[in-house]
Amino acid sequence: MNELKLVDRIRRMAASSREKTGPGGVLLGIGHDCAIFRPPAGFDLLLKTDQLIERIHYSAAITPASTVGARALARPLSDIAAMGGEPRCCLVSLALPFSKRSDWAVNFFKGLLRLARRTKTVLAGGDLSRDSHVHCAVMVCGIVPRGKGLRRDGARPGDALYVSGRLGKPWDHPIRPRLELGRALIGHATACMDLSDGLALDLHRLCVESRVAAEVDRVPLFRGASLDRALHGGEDYELLFTLAARATPPRGVTRIGTIVAGSPGVVRFQGRKLPPRGWNHFAP
Amino acid sequence: MNELKLVDRIRRMAASSREKTGPGGVLLGIGHDCAIFRPPAGFDLLLKTDQLIERIHYSAAITPASTVGARALARPLSDIAAMGGEPRCCLVSLALPFSKRSDWAVNFFKGLLRLARRTKTVLAGGDLSRDSHVHCAVMVCGIVPRGKGLRRDGARPGDALYVSGRLGKPWDHPIRPRLELGRALIGHATACMDLSDGLALDLHRLCVESRVAAEVDRVPLFRGASLDRALHGGEDYELLFTLAARATPPRGVTRIGTIVAGSPGVVRFQGRKLPPRGWNHFAP
Repeated sequence: MNELKLVDRIRRMAASSREKTGPGGVLLGIGHDCAIFRPPAGFDLLLKTDQLIERIHYSAAITPASTVGARALARPLSDIAAMGGEPRCCLVSLALPFSKRSDWAVNFFKGLLRLARRTKTVLAGGDLSRDSHVHCAVMVCGIVPRGKGLRRDGARPGDALYVSGRLGKPWDHPIRPRLELGRALIGHATACMDLSDGLALDLHRLCVESRVAAEVDRVPLFRGASLDRALHGGEDYELLFTLAARATPPRGVTRIGTIVAGSPGVVRFQGRKLPPRGWNHFAP
Repeated sequence: MNELKLVDRIRRMAASSREKTGPGGVLLGIGHDCAIFRPPAGFDLLLKTDQLIERIHYSAAITPASTVGARALARPLSDIAAMGGEPRCCLVSLALPFSKRSDWAVNFFKGLLRLARRTKTVLAGGDLSRDSHVHCAVMVCGIVPRGKGLRRDGARPGDALYVSGRLGKPWDHPIRPRLELGRALIGHATACMDLSDGLALDLHRLCVESRVAAEVDRVPLFRGASLDRALHGGEDYELLFTLAARATPPRGVTRIGTIVAGSPGVVRFQGRKLPPRGWNHFAP
């Protein structure tokens, strides 16, 4: 397939997906200069973009195209979940080598569209290019009731600290964006974010934004994971959030500690200071 | 600089830009899981993403970082212009080698933010990663009065066909997104798109969407450009649009031909059929 035929194929795949999910506010999709999205009244929009790059974020030798497509969409969806949002549409920038312009590309979009249907995300546009290896950037647009988006900066001393799921997952574990949990936390969580660069670094960020410190007592480990990976690894895609001390947590989450007054950003684990070390693309 | 320091630097640069342009509806920007954008009532949103890749779209040896940054934003802005929109915010996905993580990256964002200020586009977020060469994808969110966005599918037989500027520019000619012209065409142009893959291919696309054919008489050439480059080259970023036969065109545009009834997509240049040949990333 050349570029025009591939675009045409993706356009038909997206149209057939959209028949199942409904238009979700997208008035004009693939094949135009821009997508047109009509925002519903009473909502703010959430905008997020995330990259997925061959050799940096996954190994081409062992990762099927459909998994790459699903993962490329799952990563920004996890951020929409972290703010309590509902995804509406996505744009996909994809660069790939000549040899992957046909079957590989179609399977990439099959995987991406399967997750898109499950989460009612319309594939509304994007951009294709050639490159030496696969490089993907997916932008997701979501909605959240006006003024209600969950943020990182509302944690207060005394709040209880929670995570969903278990931490220290291997890098290729499937991502299940916590969209339902995120929505359930609206109006309850005082702060929330997703764990993508490791608990130590991400909790440090939450504490900096909220100008508080944190004490962590325990961490729910993924099967076979080391404590170091659970604290400093970077591919968990779980939610980290805080609730007022007496609030009832949703089911299936784990209390891992408490927010305290102190130097903004300082995190202690079982009494010892935890360095904000995690995923860093430009570590020396 | 490591990734955290670079993000911090970009965040300060974006904040200082935003002080000059105003928030433009962006309630929460860099440093959170998502950007929050509050859409104004009575408007549709335009969403567009475009890639700019070293070795594919520009040569690293002769293109300064600030030019790469400006061009990466200018390309999607040209699509916002083509639909008559007003840009509001952008998200920047940038992958770059370790050696470019400091000065190069800062200059990239300086160039991008200079154009962002001129066009009142707020840098609201993005994603940084490492890669073997520079890869950038910029998403722009714009607004257009509800139901008024210019589209490709409204050209009718008898309409006059126009372009802005001159065609056949060299690939490194600065892009001037035609935002003012696009806004002036709202309520007047029957169809509009931007020229990014060459007149022959792009006019073919406009005719396919509108289910019409076109006859082109003449093309305004950029100084020193060949006719072949003006017809089939791919870096013009001018607007191609149609007006009802008796409508008065805006100043500074050139009438190049007429929309006619015929096989959808067929374009004739001075009587001869013009093949829809232009920029194609996966040409054999």
